[in-house]
Amino acid sequence: MKQQLAVGIDIGGTNTVFGIVDRRGNLLCDGSISTKKHTEIPLFVDDLCKELSKLIDQAGGLDEIKGIGVGAPNGNYFKGTIEFAPNLPWKGIIPLANLIQDAFGLPAVLTNDANAAAIGEMTYGAARGMKDFIMITLGTGLGSGIVVNGELVYGHDGFAGELGHVIVNPEGRQCGCGRYGCLETYVSATGIARTMRELLETHQTDSLLRGLPDDQITSKSTRDAAVQGDKLALEAFEYTGKLLGQQLANFIAFSSPEAIILFGGLTKAGDLILRPTVHHMEENLLEIYKNKVTVLMSELKESDAAILGASALVWEMKD
Amino acid sequence: MKQQLAVGIDIGGTNTVFGIVDRRGNLLCDGSISTKKHTEIPLFVDDLCKELSKLIDQAGGLDEIKGIGVGAPNGNYFKGTIEFAPNLPWKGIIPLANLIQDAFGLPAVLTNDANAAAIGEMTYGAARGMKDFIMITLGTGLGSGIVVNGELVYGHDGFAGELGHVIVNPEGRQCGCGRYGCLETYVSATGIARTMRELLETHQTDSLLRGLPDDQITSKSTRDAAVQGDKLALEAFEYTGKLLGQQLANFIAFSSPEAIILFGGLTKAGDLILRPTVHHMEENLLEIYKNKVTVLMSELKESDAAILGASALVWEMKD
Repeated sequence: MKQQLAVGIDIGGTNTVFGIVDRRGNLLCDGSISTKKHTEIPLFVDDLCKELSKLIDQAGGLDEIKGIGVGAPNGNYFKGTIEFAPNLPWKGIIPLANLIQDAFGLPAVLTNDANAAAIGEMTYGAARGMKDFIMITLGTGLGSGIVVNGELVYGHDGFAGELGHVIVNPEGRQCGCGRYGCLETYVSATGIARTMRELLETHQTDSLLRGLPDDQITSKSTRDAAVQGDKLALEAFEYTGKLLGQQLANFIAFSSPEAIILFGGLTKAGDLILRPTVHHMEENLLEIYKNKVTVLMSELKESDAAILGASALVWEMKD
Repeated sequence: MKQQLAVGIDIGGTNTVFGIVDRRGNLLCDGSISTKKHTEIPLFVDDLCKELSKLIDQAGGLDEIKGIGVGAPNGNYFKGTIEFAPNLPWKGIIPLANLIQDAFGLPAVLTNDANAAAIGEMTYGAARGMKDFIMITLGTGLGSGIVVNGELVYGHDGFAGELGHVIVNPEGRQCGCGRYGCLETYVSATGIARTMRELLETHQTDSLLRGLPDDQITSKSTRDAAVQGDKLALEAFEYTGKLLGQQLANFIAFSSPEAIILFGGLTKAGDLILRPTVHHMEENLLEIYKNKVTVLMSELKESDAAILGASALVWEMKD
């Protein structure tokens, strides 16, 4: 039987990873190229195609492949474009889905990385069988993919689901988007590091991280300290979970999902982040929603998840 | 041609209104009974059926009717129930859709009043042809109905779209739901009256409403004063529009709609509420959403809108 495989490509600020995936979510082979070094988009597409062609040949050739799915920051599903992505080397609007489609003669579909993660989770992971859930990715920023009635919410313009840019405090921290108080300035790997640095400045409490240079106070070192019982580091997790939980309660009032699925670096802290998040979410929920919404960790292996998510877009394509 | 008519029933805290509507949204005839006086649900259903039967006979009999749509506070679409509605005389869970269906032998469908308003606007009003929009009803409280991909968002449990209970300030005003700082404690007819009373207390500025007893400081008297240029009343509208606009910017980050449609008593203030709302919405939008989302006033006549909205549910029924 032909066309039982899909290609997934995930474009990150540093590297682009890609691979070939079967319908059960097994990653058969994968590769990567540098994103950063390819400042010109034609050269990037050329090199990507060269490497990807080798994998496709290994997997049995083009006839085996149903299509190509791409996850990218600021990806627009309707237009197949990457638009003004601040962390990529290419400026303006890049019609990447078309470029890839033309290179391989295979249908290509593109969306933002958090949407791809949501589809991946629905196809292969913790959201299998769910029709209403919200995916939250906690990396450098906070990304989100929202599924309603079994379909990803793209909105009128293809840019729905930017929950990292919900403003939680108009007088709050400056965000990379130019505004102030966006959720991701607090709830993300960089957000918790910022919180930890603030706590060290404003408190006298002893801490394992006291005296370290700023660039060594990261989400990882905060987690390591919290695991060892460091009071300020534990407070940083409590504060991060509180803000996330409060906002999840608001998101639930919007789409009343069955579950919230958390993914990304910050979730490695496990209960340190999950416990305060769930506590403050329940605390802030409207009565009718209480004890109904599960908060789950992603079931996808982090190193493979981006490729899996992008590949899952292919199975959603209309034939 | 048969079954070209639909019944719409809107259950309010004081009165229940109902009518018969054609596919173009013409209200052919209507009636009402007291909700308040019917403390027992069987008597309510009996009297409702008696009055409604007269209308149905006038309209040509049961054969002309495709079904019955009901809008009610705390209405659950999936179960056809009204659940724990604080402003209705009936306690607990009321299986109203079934009761009405049994009484007439016609299919009946029920949802909350703001969802019905959204479907009404999509079928007959300002949202015709739109697939992604958010309906905001500004009455005693703030209700909402969210449409994504041309379908109303009900969520996993049928209770999605409670945007009046998004918490805008955890240390804010107490809400009827028992929590603090819900959007509807600020943005609603009662919310703006509360704001006006607070402004009178905390400011020395002269005002047309100064010295009036609290119960005469309402959304209507605030509007009348604002129209006459009363500084504090104008400030009350500015503040209300600011909070609404800020939150609309957050809602847009969720579902990226084509339009926001405002409905209800507070919208009678026209530009007094629209101007600050749009200004603060645009001010707070993430760059990619700016100048894309229209804020519109409902096109349905307020007196008919509740019946029209409920009737429109019937055309959405799967045959």
